[in-house]
Amino acid sequence: MITMTAPLEDRIAAAPGEFRVLTGDRPTGPLHLGHYFGTLRNRIELQRSGVDMFVIVADYQVLTDRDVADRLVETVDALVLDYLAAGLDPERATVFAHSAVPALNQLLLPFLSLVTVPELQRNPTVKDEILHARQRSVSGLMFTYPVNQAADILFCKGNLVPVGQDQLPHVEVTRTVARRFNERYGQVFPVPEGLLSTAPVLAGTDGWKMSKSRDNAIALSATPDETARLVRAATTDADRHITYDPERRPGVSGLVHLAALCLGRDPHDVAAEIGGAGAAALKRMVTEAVNEFLAPLRERRAAYAKDPGLVRSVLRTGNARANAIADQTLGEVREAMSTVY
Amino acid sequence: MITMTAPLEDRIAAAPGEFRVLTGDRPTGPLHLGHYFGTLRNRIELQRSGVDMFVIVADYQVLTDRDVADRLVETVDALVLDYLAAGLDPERATVFAHSAVPALNQLLLPFLSLVTVPELQRNPTVKDEILHARQRSVSGLMFTYPVNQAADILFCKGNLVPVGQDQLPHVEVTRTVARRFNERYGQVFPVPEGLLSTAPVLAGTDGWKMSKSRDNAIALSATPDETARLVRAATTDADRHITYDPERRPGVSGLVHLAALCLGRDPHDVAAEIGGAGAAALKRMVTEAVNEFLAPLRERRAAYAKDPGLVRSVLRTGNARANAIADQTLGEVREAMSTVY
Repeated sequence: MITMTAPLEDRIAAAPGEFRVLTGDRPTGPLHLGHYFGTLRNRIELQRSGVDMFVIVADYQVLTDRDVADRLVETVDALVLDYLAAGLDPERATVFAHSAVPALNQLLLPFLSLVTVPELQRNPTVKDEILHARQRSVSGLMFTYPVNQAADILFCKGNLVPVGQDQLPHVEVTRTVARRFNERYGQVFPVPEGLLSTAPVLAGTDGWKMSKSRDNAIALSATPDETARLVRAATTDADRHITYDPERRPGVSGLVHLAALCLGRDPHDVAAEIGGAGAAALKRMVTEAVNEFLAPLRERRAAYAKDPGLVRSVLRTGNARANAIADQTLGEVREAMSTVY
Repeated sequence: MITMTAPLEDRIAAAPGEFRVLTGDRPTGPLHLGHYFGTLRNRIELQRSGVDMFVIVADYQVLTDRDVADRLVETVDALVLDYLAAGLDPERATVFAHSAVPALNQLLLPFLSLVTVPELQRNPTVKDEILHARQRSVSGLMFTYPVNQAADILFCKGNLVPVGQDQLPHVEVTRTVARRFNERYGQVFPVPEGLLSTAPVLAGTDGWKMSKSRDNAIALSATPDETARLVRAATTDADRHITYDPERRPGVSGLVHLAALCLGRDPHDVAAEIGGAGAAALKRMVTEAVNEFLAPLRERRAAYAKDPGLVRSVLRTGNARANAIADQTLGEVREAMSTVY
């Protein structure tokens, strides 16, 4: 028997039908191997387990990035193609655009009334944004981001949110909003749980965390030749003997790790196998492993890309489903708040 | 010929069809004579002039006031009855509830991306709220209030906003949002103008500004007897000779002013007419003037109140019209922002 104190993973496996996942991405550009091993692979597993999944394309969260905002349709299309290629099944998962669901967005208003400005200021991501001030200064949308996310999660009564360690505070805001709403107006929302990712951070071709903005990423949609070129140009070091030592040898170890993930092997074994054969041998192995690993995904992607109506049809279906559910939830919220006229 | 430099009032009179007004109230309780002479009378005049008018019942803006939130339906009903009694014609004006128009509320998100946190912090009303901290601390909804108001005004492409002097900064935020949106995404919104009220501030029965929260207000829906009681208990002073001198004699002058407004006379004349007859005579005159002035309004209100479905039908019609227009505007916004999938 599974009790409430059983690990979340066990509870999901025992009763997947009791979980609804909200997950998604900001459409900032092509997904890469960092996304794949960090989150996509988990989503496919959750889908396989029978959990109901909502995947939000967070298009309103890229508005402040002018480069992205100016070619949003293209970026969104590419993102959805990446999803399908990675194995998300639109028959089982609801893929939808944030901007396409007004009733979801309306939830932001009552939710904002449940959170104070100091609470928003304390949020680490908002703090971080203020510190780094990528924009001249933080926008009202960025400032209210954790509450937007509460609306994204709660509109479909999501009770499971896959997160990295750094996103846990966001889920905490959602949990606070759900609790306060229920206390004040009556039970409407679940208090969602964060499903902490055990996926390791993947290094890019320069030894740093793989990230589009660092230009060190291997896109899922890259060709085998592009992949080979990227791996050939990767940073290694002067020690010919290959070892797996992420702290002291980030470049070499990143490559070892990548090969190991693609091959489903232990990185120490991979490193031992290369041994004295050096960086060139390692890079050949990585290129081959990545290209073989991504081959079926790239094949699916190419096939899907040939159908120009596919992505739009996936989004149309997902948007319609998200709207139906959001309208239903907003109806319950109106009843609870006595704003039915 | 009316040029762009002509006073706003003249431009409205010359071409009322070119103006769409957004106005409204927070449903906090019965409207009183301060509301009537401060804003309602103006709205009836604008309606008469042929301007298209949208009247928002700002129900989301009272959520932090628990006393109000707990009996919202009742308060909203009373507010709409007051509107109808005062002469708002639901055939010509669109009366709708803020919470009933999801596409309007969605506009908050793109608009928030156009405004920075320091700009929100500079807003005088928000500053004031922080200073007075009526709540333990300012909510996210209060903090974003000027941007909410931009959505309220711009969803229907309102280009005229009747305001008191203290609300001008809010209209300035709306103007900024409209300008920035148009610059960035292409022309969608008018840059609205504030129609500054020339209505004098009405004193309550204690000589201070008439306000529900000071308990010094004569509600439009009060009975003649209640009105007489309120006026009898009003603050006056020891000088038997009645004069109109708001600065030195706020109590007496407030009563003189009220009688003058109801009678359509000059307050100095009213004071001179009473002269040495003293406060009791003044109060008799005020009671009579107010009751006579409000008689037709109260009669209409009583008649409307007998029709239990009327208010709901007014709101249903208004909500439907507001939703149709909001959906249309959000469609244009989606086109402009390239978020059409």
